[in-house]
Amino acid sequence: MTETIINVAHACADAARTVIRPYFRTSIQADAKSDDSPVTIADKAAERAMRDILEEQLPDHGILGEEAGQSGHDGDWLWVLDPIDGTRAFLTGRPTFGILVSLFYKGRPVLGLIDQPITNERWLGVEGQVTTFTAANIPGKAGTRICAELNKAELSCTSPEMLTPEHTPRFKNLQAQTLRTSWGGDCYSYGLLALGQIDVIAECTMKPWDWGALVPIIQGAGGHISDWQGAPLHLESDGTVLACGNPALLPQLISALSPRN
Amino acid sequence: MTETIINVAHACADAARTVIRPYFRTSIQADAKSDDSPVTIADKAAERAMRDILEEQLPDHGILGEEAGQSGHDGDWLWVLDPIDGTRAFLTGRPTFGILVSLFYKGRPVLGLIDQPITNERWLGVEGQVTTFTAANIPGKAGTRICAELNKAELSCTSPEMLTPEHTPRFKNLQAQTLRTSWGGDCYSYGLLALGQIDVIAECTMKPWDWGALVPIIQGAGGHISDWQGAPLHLESDGTVLACGNPALLPQLISALSPRN
Repeated sequence: MTETIINVAHACADAARTVIRPYFRTSIQADAKSDDSPVTIADKAAERAMRDILEEQLPDHGILGEEAGQSGHDGDWLWVLDPIDGTRAFLTGRPTFGILVSLFYKGRPVLGLIDQPITNERWLGVEGQVTTFTAANIPGKAGTRICAELNKAELSCTSPEMLTPEHTPRFKNLQAQTLRTSWGGDCYSYGLLALGQIDVIAECTMKPWDWGALVPIIQGAGGHISDWQGAPLHLESDGTVLACGNPALLPQLISALSPRN
Repeated sequence: MTETIINVAHACADAARTVIRPYFRTSIQADAKSDDSPVTIADKAAERAMRDILEEQLPDHGILGEEAGQSGHDGDWLWVLDPIDGTRAFLTGRPTFGILVSLFYKGRPVLGLIDQPITNERWLGVEGQVTTFTAANIPGKAGTRICAELNKAELSCTSPEMLTPEHTPRFKNLQAQTLRTSWGGDCYSYGLLALGQIDVIAECTMKPWDWGALVPIIQGAGGHISDWQGAPLHLESDGTVLACGNPALLPQLISALSPRN
């Protein structure tokens, strides 16, 4: 990974942050997309700002954004963007949404960045490197924690509504084997797992722009991230995402999340 | 309400903030209480710090704290404290927990304060006065928003697990009539409702230290707060809490939350 590419990722997040901050806790309205998720002016303008940087700096790279779809070259390098992950958190004034910037190489996420523009927290993961966390006024140190027993594990999930009828009983089975569940969080929860604050996250109906940035961050912090079967995430994944701070827990997690019949 | 009493409330929150901040995102362990909620060193030390101030400054007032129970005079004035509301959020590194300080007069909450020690946000509500919100680096303005139609309302609840089997179908009925649900938040969600970011909150299994501070804050911001039947909260309430930014929605909310048979 070149320094140039890393700098472009930071520049994208900086630009999106500048666009998004003034809209936080203002009375913007959500409008309904085809999939009924909330979309705001901030969302669209932030993606535009990131696309402008990528198109100018890296014209040979493709871009896939949650708002404006795919554009640019159909080559090996693809930037996958989610200007506001956790639109629901953003719309309700919670400083736990995130700007997600990721770079895929031949379908594999090799760079990921989470930025929280209100608390000024930023996580950067690069394939083969140690994840970094930077923040001015909020503590945190990159590195997952080793929770040795599943019944001591802090489990997290954004919302019960993201779990499909097929996945709900499987999630509840996992939930019964862990210590506690906390709800809400979107990408921010994965950031907290990478800081050793959460042990397990299991979610579904996740798109590549939801999980792309998380992969290098979780891996570079010592954790594991895959689908619920333990297979690496890829652009055609089934939407299930399983992350844990202690990779040794993986067999138990996969078993707990397996269909019962 | 005297200026002295308001200053004591601020002093309690300041002291608790100083105790709590250094424990945030450190690897403290949760231990299990009889009700299985997580209690930390920070929780206990922060309540002690607040009790010390109250015992010195207002020796004629009683104190009821989540951690150490009731002490002091059994008179008209009772301070009700929750040093960390949202222990689960605190333990997982989310800056969405709160220090709750409230003062009851003859069983009625007349002063309430929510402090978020990481983002440095503070809400103060005093009976008969307009709620104030202060923060250095995060925007927000006290005052609820008038969501005129229930199907446009942002609903919030801390977790599905706080809803009992009796209350779950009633909550789901309300959920079906609102626009969207966001999860997580504890006292912080009520703060966001008082900033006009959330329209409705319905929760249950709430204790006086969970809701005491919220009452003057929500009321002083223009909102309504009661139990699920619309009755004022009091020390022997049934644990249900219903808050809304637009009091005109109340009849519809009570109806949606009523048992179906």
